[in-house]
This record gives sequence, structure tokens and C-alpha cells, in this order.
Amino acid sequence: MESFTITKIKGNHKERVEDIVAQEVPFTVNLGNRELVTVLCSPFDLEDLTRGFLFTSGLVKGPDEIKKIVIDRQRWSADIDMAEVKSENLIFKRLYTSGCGKGVLFYNALDIIYRSKIISEFKVKSVRITKLMQDFQKRSEVYLKTGGVHSAALADEKDILAFREDIGRHNAIDKVIGHALLRKNTFKNTLLITSGRISSEILFKVRRCGIPIVISGSAPTNQAVRHAREMNITIVGFVRGNRMNIYSAEERIIPE
Amino acid sequence: MESFTITKIKGNHKERVEDIVAQEVPFTVNLGNRELVTVLCSPFDLEDLTRGFLFTSGLVKGPDEIKKIVIDRQRWSADIDMAEVKSENLIFKRLYTSGCGKGVLFYNALDIIYRSKIISEFKVKSVRITKLMQDFQKRSEVYLKTGGVHSAALADEKDILAFREDIGRHNAIDKVIGHALLRKNTFKNTLLITSGRISSEILFKVRRCGIPIVISGSAPTNQAVRHAREMNITIVGFVRGNRMNIYSAEERIIPE
Repeated sequence: MESFTITKIKGNHKERVEDIVAQEVPFTVNLGNRELVTVLCSPFDLEDLTRGFLFTSGLVKGPDEIKKIVIDRQRWSADIDMAEVKSENLIFKRLYTSGCGKGVLFYNALDIIYRSKIISEFKVKSVRITKLMQDFQKRSEVYLKTGGVHSAALADEKDILAFREDIGRHNAIDKVIGHALLRKNTFKNTLLITSGRISSEILFKVRRCGIPIVISGSAPTNQAVRHAREMNITIVGFVRGNRMNIYSAEERIIPE
Repeated sequence: MESFTITKIKGNHKERVEDIVAQEVPFTVNLGNRELVTVLCSPFDLEDLTRGFLFTSGLVKGPDEIKKIVIDRQRWSADIDMAEVKSENLIFKRLYTSGCGKGVLFYNALDIIYRSKIISEFKVKSVRITKLMQDFQKRSEVYLKTGGVHSAALADEKDILAFREDIGRHNAIDKVIGHALLRKNTFKNTLLITSGRISSEILFKVRRCGIPIVISGSAPTNQAVRHAREMNITIVGFVRGNRMNIYSAEERIIPE
């Protein structure tokens, strides 16, 4: 967990407080100097994660096939040794045929490319955030019927412009963005609303579009907060009634 | 949404009711007869999803680079045409260097390999499920402090055997399984508890271990229910106090 000084808003009152946020790290599993997989995860119980991942992915048949797991907490990586050397190529073959390009995560590429600051004079009153979140929650049809989906919306200061649902948090966001692209909407002076947690992957999607504000009823991760501060994106989390937490670029939200 | 006949339990009372569940499909985006990516998603707004994914992943710079998107609702796929043919190899190069093996999804491989039925005489009283879920919720430390993580546990009829947290739902499950593997615990007569939605990917992890029952305070997807019925795994969803919904292999849960 990482501590940040954030701004808590309740109605027209605001105060600076210390808040703790869940940590997120990109964790790489290596087999014989080759990268097997990188996942975003919490930075603890990494040996359990490595062993469990290898087994549930079908890459090993049982724990005895793993000879050694060495965790490096500086580089956030695991180096694994397998019982049989010959299995190495089989594992990579398996990965490339069944896994490659599926559930793709562009963490590293985007990390490097889109770190520049968003320049935007866009400002929104906190009462508008409260209102947009109420509208957003009313519209979650599939969720209300099945309890099983996430939703995302693109909004301007006044209204929701596009609303999409999906069983995947990232898919719902991609759908909203895809819709806006088709309509040739500009992302200037817009807000992205998500029903899920704000991770660094979501921050990179938002940065890609140039959306200045992202809001959620839920929490951000520490990496999302760090990247948002670097890229000058406003994260508003835990929006509940007239209360909300501003984690970054707080000058865009006017308490009222 | 798909409708299933399920068993609702409240205390020692049970009834058969119709219930609707969110749909989940594996959706593949193809570029010139080559598979670009497969994601698990909700089966609507697929053109938005394709366009948004291509853009937020950095594979296209703007919507004009995509000449055509043809959605096939039989095979759940999209065939895309790009403005410039030369970009095709660039895109695959990009995918393989930045995305390959990251955020891996073994959907197809596991789908074929682990479909056999779980044979188990394990039975649990519904009061035990209620009690296990209460214990589970009390233990979510990082969640209670940060609001930003998922948790998973492996339990027997009486107690939680292992409990792990992670910002990722799948990672938390892999951690719990990895821990049990190290301890050489058997998965026979155990229950997996997850704080998140039950998707087909989670079902395959559970099947891989031979865990007969999976429980959650949240909803399953339609594919999870279908696979669970095929593989004879008990899904208990929406566990709230002494209420719960049984979606499959219901004979393992005794209302009491």
C-alpha cells in the first residue's frame, strides 16, 4: 500500500488528507532468460502467484515440475527453473500457439510512448460529478438485471454522451472510446466514467485519447495515481453522493 | 443475457426459479486472415469494441486508418481492413514485441483439454457457505484499507485454509492455488471463494485443480454456468447472509 496526500470533497467543503492506495506492479516471469509472461499484480505472495499461474495455465502438470523460483523484488520478476530442460521449448510453443496475442496487455509500449502531460483548461464543479455519477448508475441495465457486468461512459460537463456495458472493465471503456471515434467526437473537455477500479492500464487508455478527467465510484491503484500526476490527468475516485476523493490534477474540480 | 433455471436457497428453504445471467463470448479480431487478438467480452457493440481496442492499444493512430470492420456473429469475430496494407506487418510486429505473452489467456487450449466431469461426493450445508463467506469478508484487509483489491480463498467445509489478495481477480486465485500446491494440499473436498464475478476462465482454473465447488458474493457469466454444468462443478453465486443462488451441480449444497 502506498500513501498519497489527496483532496477530499464533501459538498462545497474540501480538505487535504493522507490516503492509502493499493499497490500495482508489472511482474515478469522468466524461464531461462526468456520472458514467459508479464502480469499487473499486487506486490506480495509472488512465489504463490508464479506457481499458481504456471499450474492453472497448464504450463506445468504439478508443483514437482518446478525446480526453483527466485523472486527479484527490485526488478519485480521471477526466474524459474524447470525439472526437465526439454520442456522449455514446449512451454514457449504452448504460449505462442495458445496464448499469443490473446488478452493483450500493451503496458510497456504505452508506458514509454504516452507519458506527456495533458494540457487542458477544462474545469468541472463537484456537483456536476455527483450528478453524472447518478445518471451513470441509473443506466446500468445489464448490471441491474444480471449483476455481472461493468460499464463505462464518456460525458461532457452536463450529460453522458455515450454509455456501454461489458463483462470486462477494459472492454466497456474500449467500446465507449470506439463509439466516440466513429462519431468523430473530440475528447477535449470530456470525462470518462468507469464502474471499476482505476488501474494504470485505464490511465493509458485515457491518456491516448487526451481525456482530462476520469471518475469512478471505486479506488485507483498507486501506479494509476503516479501516472496521472505525471500526465496531468484528474482522477476522481470513491464518488458517493456529494463526497469524492481527488487523487491528481485537483485544480480541475471546483468544490460546490 | 441468457436464462437458466437455478435453485435459490434462503435458510432451509429452496426453490427452482428462472434467472438471467450476463453473456460472455470469445471474440477474435482478424487482420488479413491472421488472428490479431481474442478477448472475452459481452456480445454487443462489437464494432465499437474493435475500433476502440485498435485505438487504445496504439495499433491505429485514428479511426481513418481503419477502412472496414465486418462483424461475424456466428463465429464471434471481426475482420478488419486497414487503409494502408503495409501497416499489417507493422501491427503484428508491434503485437509480438509489446504484447506477446503478456496478459495471457489460455481460453482455447484449456477449453479443449479440461472438459471432463469432476467426480466428487463432497456435500456442504448452506449454513456452512454462509459462515465461510462471513469469514472471507472479515479477512479482506487490503480491501478494507484501500478499496482496491480482490481476494480469493481455498476452504474446506469448516474453515478457510488459505487466503490471498491481489488487484487482479485471477491473480488472487492463482496465489491461493499456488500456496496450496506448495503445501501439497489436496483440492478434494474444497471450495474456492472469490470476491469477483465467476467467468469461464475462473471455471477452467477450478477444473484444472479438481475443486468441486466455487462460491462468490457476485454473479457468474452464462459461459461459466454452461461449462460448470458440463464439468459437474457447483457454482454458488450471490451469497448474501443465508441467501444464495445455485447455478449448477446443486446436489452438493444441502439447504439447512
